[in-house]
Amino acid sequence: MDRIPILKMGDFLLVTIQVDLYDQLAETLESDLAQMVKKYSSKGVLIDISAVSIIDSFMGRILGNISNMSKIMDAETVVVGMQPAVAITLVELGLPLKGIHCALNVERGMELLRSKVILDTPEDDEDDSNPE
Amino acid sequence: MDRIPILKMGDFLLVTIQVDLYDQLAETLESDLAQMVKKYSSKGVLIDISAVSIIDSFMGRILGNISNMSKIMDAETVVVGMQPAVAITLVELGLPLKGIHCALNVERGMELLRSKVILDTPEDDEDDSNPE
Repeated sequence: MDRIPILKMGDFLLVTIQVDLYDQLAETLESDLAQMVKKYSSKGVLIDISAVSIIDSFMGRILGNISNMSKIMDAETVVVGMQPAVAITLVELGLPLKGIHCALNVERGMELLRSKVILDTPEDDEDDSNPE
Repeated sequence: MDRIPILKMGDFLLVTIQVDLYDQLAETLESDLAQMVKKYSSKGVLIDISAVSIIDSFMGRILGNISNMSKIMDAETVVVGMQPAVAITLVELGLPLKGIHCALNVERGMELLRSKVILDTPEDDEDDSNPE
């Protein structure tokens, strides 16, 4: 496999990480995500890691990179589906995943994203910039 | 990896296939899907195969199995994100994926699912069975 598929779901992008991220794959994922955030003016990125059984410092850094990159491009990032064992290991390793929002599952992650972003739909009736 | 994660999104289930399906993995996916359809009373299953570069007769049979199983449990199945090369190969191999609905991407797949299923929300105001 040479790239992880990114699914567009409305204003958000969804990525399911099922395999171990090695250097090239992680790099491709980062650049693909940045490009898709730009292409679709996405407001949020959901990363599902329910199939990931180990998060090491490399993976943590990748998640942080994606989160920071998205933030710069005005998109929020939420990591969903972390397994309990992974959370325990992360804390024991002293990797608190700073700056990364988490949610229990995809649905809650979407709710969190919706609450975080102001979904400014480009409709005329919402145009309140004209002076009265 | 011992199982493919299944994401619940409202009334639908979403599966992203990123790795080659071998016997055990496919079997686990089938049973997991059937259980989740039951557990969440799901109305549809979306299978994203945008990361799949080869669909052979085994994979085609698995997709057919999932579709048939879901149908029996009153859920529709839509396969989304097929790469052009895969479609060409399928036709050349004489594997038309009978009985499987396809859509270009996840969003269109969701639309197709919504049009196929009657989302009977358990609300009282939609009760039109009373005679006038």
